[in-house]
Amino acid sequence: MEKQKSQLEVTHAELLQALANNETKVFRKRFLDMHFYDQAHFYLSLEPDQRKQLYRVLNAHEVGDFFDTIEDDLPEMTELLAEMDTQYAANMLNDMFDDNAADILEHLPKEDVDRYLSLMNRSDAIKLRKLLHYDTETAGGIMTTDYVSVLEDLDVGQALAELKRVAADAETIYYVYVVNSDNLLVGVLTLRDLLVHDSHTKLAEIMTPNAITASVHDEQAEVAQKIRDYDFIALPVVDDQQKLVGIITVDDAIEVIDDEAQSDYSGLAGVDVDYVSENPFKAASKRLPWLITLLFLGMLTATLINHYEALLSTASILAVFISLITGTAGNAGTQSLAVAVRRLAVNGDNKPKIWRLVLSEVLTGLVTGVITGLTVMLIVGIWKQNLILGVTIGLAMAAAITVANLAGSLIPMLMEKIGFDPAVASGPFITTLSDLTSVLIYFSIAQFFLNAFLN
Amino acid sequence: MEKQKSQLEVTHAELLQALANNETKVFRKRFLDMHFYDQAHFYLSLEPDQRKQLYRVLNAHEVGDFFDTIEDDLPEMTELLAEMDTQYAANMLNDMFDDNAADILEHLPKEDVDRYLSLMNRSDAIKLRKLLHYDTETAGGIMTTDYVSVLEDLDVGQALAELKRVAADAETIYYVYVVNSDNLLVGVLTLRDLLVHDSHTKLAEIMTPNAITASVHDEQAEVAQKIRDYDFIALPVVDDQQKLVGIITVDDAIEVIDDEAQSDYSGLAGVDVDYVSENPFKAASKRLPWLITLLFLGMLTATLINHYEALLSTASILAVFISLITGTAGNAGTQSLAVAVRRLAVNGDNKPKIWRLVLSEVLTGLVTGVITGLTVMLIVGIWKQNLILGVTIGLAMAAAITVANLAGSLIPMLMEKIGFDPAVASGPFITTLSDLTSVLIYFSIAQFFLNAFLN
Repeated sequence: MEKQKSQLEVTHAELLQALANNETKVFRKRFLDMHFYDQAHFYLSLEPDQRKQLYRVLNAHEVGDFFDTIEDDLPEMTELLAEMDTQYAANMLNDMFDDNAADILEHLPKEDVDRYLSLMNRSDAIKLRKLLHYDTETAGGIMTTDYVSVLEDLDVGQALAELKRVAADAETIYYVYVVNSDNLLVGVLTLRDLLVHDSHTKLAEIMTPNAITASVHDEQAEVAQKIRDYDFIALPVVDDQQKLVGIITVDDAIEVIDDEAQSDYSGLAGVDVDYVSENPFKAASKRLPWLITLLFLGMLTATLINHYEALLSTASILAVFISLITGTAGNAGTQSLAVAVRRLAVNGDNKPKIWRLVLSEVLTGLVTGVITGLTVMLIVGIWKQNLILGVTIGLAMAAAITVANLAGSLIPMLMEKIGFDPAVASGPFITTLSDLTSVLIYFSIAQFFLNAFLN
Repeated sequence: MEKQKSQLEVTHAELLQALANNETKVFRKRFLDMHFYDQAHFYLSLEPDQRKQLYRVLNAHEVGDFFDTIEDDLPEMTELLAEMDTQYAANMLNDMFDDNAADILEHLPKEDVDRYLSLMNRSDAIKLRKLLHYDTETAGGIMTTDYVSVLEDLDVGQALAELKRVAADAETIYYVYVVNSDNLLVGVLTLRDLLVHDSHTKLAEIMTPNAITASVHDEQAEVAQKIRDYDFIALPVVDDQQKLVGIITVDDAIEVIDDEAQSDYSGLAGVDVDYVSENPFKAASKRLPWLITLLFLGMLTATLINHYEALLSTASILAVFISLITGTAGNAGTQSLAVAVRRLAVNGDNKPKIWRLVLSEVLTGLVTGVITGLTVMLIVGIWKQNLILGVTIGLAMAAAITVANLAGSLIPMLMEKIGFDPAVASGPFITTLSDLTSVLIYFSIAQFFLNAFLN
């Protein structure tokens, strides 16, 4: 690793020098020898002036090659495109794999999209418009139309010839999709199948019929899971008439799996971990909205405790255990939330019934609550030599944990039900809400015992 | 989706019937027509008796094909193997891709491993022993030796012929690795390159030299990230002498990426979300260890509050804001923890300097703390018409948030430094620890103000 890294640094320095000195040939040789991902890495490290110099020595096709590896939601994407000549940018988008080009266009203002499309060759512009039409988070939104399909009546030799013809433009040539004259998908072949069979073998004899497919409307997370489960390199996408309209490649599936995991993680933490800044003010501006919102929810808890001030001044010992009860219930609620969010995230077929999941979480809360409650009852009873206090804390703990588990599982379920991402029900929200219910439970129980023993 | 699902259910029912009625031919035809992943899904749904019946109608090779798609850390794997005839199990493991076989063997008792290896063909057993030798979490631990390599002096036609010869056994034939006579990796070719070039072209002319590689000792997370960044289908693995020893395929990279994300997520939640049970007792047994451990840490906070009982009975209003301060600081600490864990998880090259990260988190804590502190000072000051109280709460809030950010970033860093997974520093642990520091800060400040105004 270390060696490779320093090698890359040396290369960067040499590239910068070649660029500065207008040594076009040297630059092109060194640059084009690198992997596209490394090219992109170098490109993104440049200053605007240097990038303009680079556009002069590389053609739109060469720039498009490495733009395919750049994340489409890069914040500075609009500026990068704007600093190119418009026709150059349009050519570059045209030369990219069309799923990547569509992903970039999706993040641009509508007038930019129209301008770039109007400068492209017509059939490609139409293809891109179709892709832009699909929801971003569906199979249609992430698929590419740069796939290889052949007619079912061909033989192996003909298919290989067709493959050679289109190899340069297709995103993957590892799978060959077999269609009939209506473009209905009738089977799939791997390049491996083509290689090991005689060139006169008919495709129909060796193809796998009933290929596993996704529908254009399928959720991207489901599709990615399918690619993962079946260890596919690509998955064909069909429209409502079962016509082949695109494929989704494994690299896009990885992005989806990772994005979904990041978003679940960010939800649990109450902060978007995807965009991290080392600038404390920028970082704070990302975190404050949640903190301040939850501060107001926390004020409700404070108001509630305030409401019980008389009780607290009679039995100030109660204050000692507020944070123990709210803290433990918050921990239990976070566990419950995490389990519920992950179970909702698993693929469609195995998605659990909502009420069943909530019931199982509440029962789990009851079991953990009773055991934790008994533990704390013993500790407090012995420490304070006060059985009533022990029982109060123990009961409050058990009830607060059960309610926290209910909230931790029910809230993401309801979110999902009304069409929101369940991960939006963040961990901090659940713990802050659980503070409120825990305090209410705690003081109600304490008040009850106090009244019972005072009367 | 719906249609496919019910189709699969129909198939399952038919398969079960064929198995029960000893209709071997019907069963074999229907079963072997399914995708390996679906075969595994059916197999895992069977009762032990039904599985034994299945071993009679399928040979070890056919079973090995779908065992390749089963997760290697399946808890019942040992029993599944034990119920097969030992030689049959050994043959099956022998027929699997060797990375998958090694992953299964890694989870078995040593005597079982020795028995299975002794029953395999000798060269395969030696290969597997070598794979078992590597750390599970390194490139060596997840690579396969079922790759395609060719000598550098061959031409395209010869390489294609070699490819056809080994196509059935190799895990992927999409990349062809070019080695010299010492087995040093000198270049890489894609099958696409072979297809589009004339059969007499020398490999040296068209191969990509300086292939991007992983070392056997590289961490699996780093390697997976590399495969993701470069959109590879496979990545070659070399030993310390730069000799080619294996490849890592993209499906294994997805598993690694997903496992790492799950483990970060589980850490943040303080519960292993990977194994979820609907049985409340089993689920509770997974969650109680953390809850009870943290309960004792929470007891420290209670003891601390108890220590300030005199202060609390003098100014019982202080009790009203305990949960507001601990809750908000806990939320900030969770955000900080999540950011730190994710930043530590990014690939080696860009790993941030520890102290720089902690400093940036503490500064972020200071900014968020001051703003949140000012907000709460205003609210409390106005609500309670008490400036001193407002200042006390505001100061305590600002300090508690800063300290929570320090803890949230420092603790995972220290974990990483001493060789632990930083994700083990769970969210609930940070919030519970932050309860303790927040209470200490809060009461110290309150005591100071009280003394200042009483004297």
